[in-house]
Amino acid sequence: MDDSDPPTKGATRRRFLSGVAGLSGAAFTDASSLAGDPKNLPPNVPEWTRVLGDGVAVRPYGHPSKHEAQVIRRDVLWLTASRESSVSFTPLHELDGIITPSGLCFERHHSGIAEIDPEDYRLILHGLVEKELIFTLADLKRFPRQNHIYFLECAANSGMEWRGAQLNGCQYTHGMVHCVEYTGVPLRVLLAEAGVRPSAKWLLAEGADSAAMSRSIPLAKALDDCLVAYRMNGEMLRPEQGYPARLVVPGWEGNVWVKWLRRLKLGDQPWFAREETSKYTDLMADGTARRFTFVMDAKSVITSPSPQAPVRAKGFMVISGLAWSGRGKIRRVDVSLDGGRNWREARLDGLVLDKACVRFYAETEWSGGELLLQSRAIDETGYVQPTKAELRKIRGVNSIYHNNGIQTWLVKSDGEVENVEVS
Amino acid sequence: MDDSDPPTKGATRRRFLSGVAGLSGAAFTDASSLAGDPKNLPPNVPEWTRVLGDGVAVRPYGHPSKHEAQVIRRDVLWLTASRESSVSFTPLHELDGIITPSGLCFERHHSGIAEIDPEDYRLILHGLVEKELIFTLADLKRFPRQNHIYFLECAANSGMEWRGAQLNGCQYTHGMVHCVEYTGVPLRVLLAEAGVRPSAKWLLAEGADSAAMSRSIPLAKALDDCLVAYRMNGEMLRPEQGYPARLVVPGWEGNVWVKWLRRLKLGDQPWFAREETSKYTDLMADGTARRFTFVMDAKSVITSPSPQAPVRAKGFMVISGLAWSGRGKIRRVDVSLDGGRNWREARLDGLVLDKACVRFYAETEWSGGELLLQSRAIDETGYVQPTKAELRKIRGVNSIYHNNGIQTWLVKSDGEVENVEVS
Repeated sequence: MDDSDPPTKGATRRRFLSGVAGLSGAAFTDASSLAGDPKNLPPNVPEWTRVLGDGVAVRPYGHPSKHEAQVIRRDVLWLTASRESSVSFTPLHELDGIITPSGLCFERHHSGIAEIDPEDYRLILHGLVEKELIFTLADLKRFPRQNHIYFLECAANSGMEWRGAQLNGCQYTHGMVHCVEYTGVPLRVLLAEAGVRPSAKWLLAEGADSAAMSRSIPLAKALDDCLVAYRMNGEMLRPEQGYPARLVVPGWEGNVWVKWLRRLKLGDQPWFAREETSKYTDLMADGTARRFTFVMDAKSVITSPSPQAPVRAKGFMVISGLAWSGRGKIRRVDVSLDGGRNWREARLDGLVLDKACVRFYAETEWSGGELLLQSRAIDETGYVQPTKAELRKIRGVNSIYHNNGIQTWLVKSDGEVENVEVS
Repeated sequence: MDDSDPPTKGATRRRFLSGVAGLSGAAFTDASSLAGDPKNLPPNVPEWTRVLGDGVAVRPYGHPSKHEAQVIRRDVLWLTASRESSVSFTPLHELDGIITPSGLCFERHHSGIAEIDPEDYRLILHGLVEKELIFTLADLKRFPRQNHIYFLECAANSGMEWRGAQLNGCQYTHGMVHCVEYTGVPLRVLLAEAGVRPSAKWLLAEGADSAAMSRSIPLAKALDDCLVAYRMNGEMLRPEQGYPARLVVPGWEGNVWVKWLRRLKLGDQPWFAREETSKYTDLMADGTARRFTFVMDAKSVITSPSPQAPVRAKGFMVISGLAWSGRGKIRRVDVSLDGGRNWREARLDGLVLDKACVRFYAETEWSGGELLLQSRAIDETGYVQPTKAELRKIRGVNSIYHNNGIQTWLVKSDGEVENVEVS
């Protein structure tokens, strides 16, 4: 389980799947795994090899196969009063690796998607600066720039789970997270261009959407690793992700990554905007509120098997999931098959980057018995992802924010999977 | 130039752009950089802040902004006899970072895009194996898997440049390269499942397109780092990239990354298929042919400024480009402003991965004088990207393959950029 490269290096025989069909002349030894249209199956030459396909640039900007039409963002209409102030969820159960395709990155809008003409776009930088400035998009693109792969998680991700298992699928329980490569100007470069006055301690970031979504950010973070980003995964930001420019605030809750960024103002105290007072605060059991809880603590989820990705065959099984931490790199992920009684170390696959999603795998054999699948992330600070019970003991059940508790999936004997809680 | 983090860490004043507008009450100090619709410009509140935008999941699978309609793959109709056996090019000049969005990855088809029903998809593994096997797509997804970011370059990339500067834009001169995250089964795992016979030395990979595109690959490479991949950038492969499964052959010419993978056969010698005899060989000046020239040597190109991305303003300027090597990691990239007489080291940005694209930047001031921009990649083996003259001295000008010569862009005093050669 802790082998970083479990597949054998050599060419000696190692059978993973007992159900793979043998080819013996024209006969199949195991028809059970070979459902399909007989005219396309070996030894026949399939239909698609008999016809000339579409040529190049038939789609100058490409789309997924028509056979992948189920791989989409989904909303939950009863969750919010309107589509314009709502959320759609990333289909984590349909993805692998760490990069989220831009077309599948979850959406959270407070007043719909601002439709901005890039020629008319302006970013205003004012307040406690030596010289107030206005940047065009062309201006922003001329500054020194950097590229980073970061996760973005909404503070309300898993929010419905505080009071018990409610949503049946990791798309809904954990789908307010995505991870892409951003290109942008370090915010400190823009601030240096204007000159920061010594009395400045906080930054207000305001969006150009009709909610004028606003958040206060401590100046120390603004000067550390924030970006004013205009690209994701190489191309310009998608409209629903803040086209043409957004704030990137690595490791912090998504709400402060202000989209359609219109205004940055330096001040000597926070602004106590609507979204940091009535919302995006954590209401405790005693009625007080935790405010400015920016950092997203270490978290993980098993994306397959999961309720939307049931187990279809006995035998060798890959358990796959994502882990991330707003405090740095993921150091380790553990997986349990029995609801947290026993743990084994998962294999971290490929890139383990600062404040980015990490893909983990745990390989096992499934004989058809019930499983209680859990994953537990540990980051480089030593922080261990808590159970939901541990979280509730400290934070109560009033809040919908910052739920990074351990998720449990019940795998039933028929391979179907349910969202459950274990005591 | 060799500073890995040129933007200042502190908040002291450092002006990059002299043309950025100052904000003084409601007045602009520099109207020249502020063209746009007056009703949307500061201090006015722009149109888009006054209306409710589209809600979530209006596009369950998202698309780029309508203002980015020029960011597309393009073909060159005179280059090939038909669209079905042709190529479209990645718009490198419109991208940044290292990840290529899946919708913009260049296409090269020999008989159009095979349109495969994933339920009917089969991969046949036969020849010199202990047990011949047939895999369904569901079978492939059950094996242990890995994720890697790799570049893929067509052997014919820059092919038109052998006989002189011909195509005016890096989309056309260098746009047969892309770089994405792949998810797949190590090929050695599938081979071990079947059991490789000791006499096996080569592998035939055949596509399910109507060209049945076939290539021979040495067994040592197949057992090293090849993948049978079914995902790119998290989601399933795009149809034009081999949906539902393709071969990934890291660092080797794109033609051997067989798409719509249908058949793998082990043998004791290469098959001398059409695409490794009449094509994808390098015709030398003396009439002999270099065969099985698989590895893509170190190469780089400046993507901005470039003919499709001219310089729009004097003053501070970021030179941006991509570098890659089929032999490992990029160690260094040098940039010249004077056609190769003087070189300075560029800044490698972010991730420097094995057999993946690397983004480099070189920052300078442009006063309006002519520049002859070049970039030169050096990989971890010490190999230095050659000039076109050095390449032609050894390889002549008959071939269209494996041109990794240094590219030159002439920046003219009006900021327009041309593809030129320097002697």
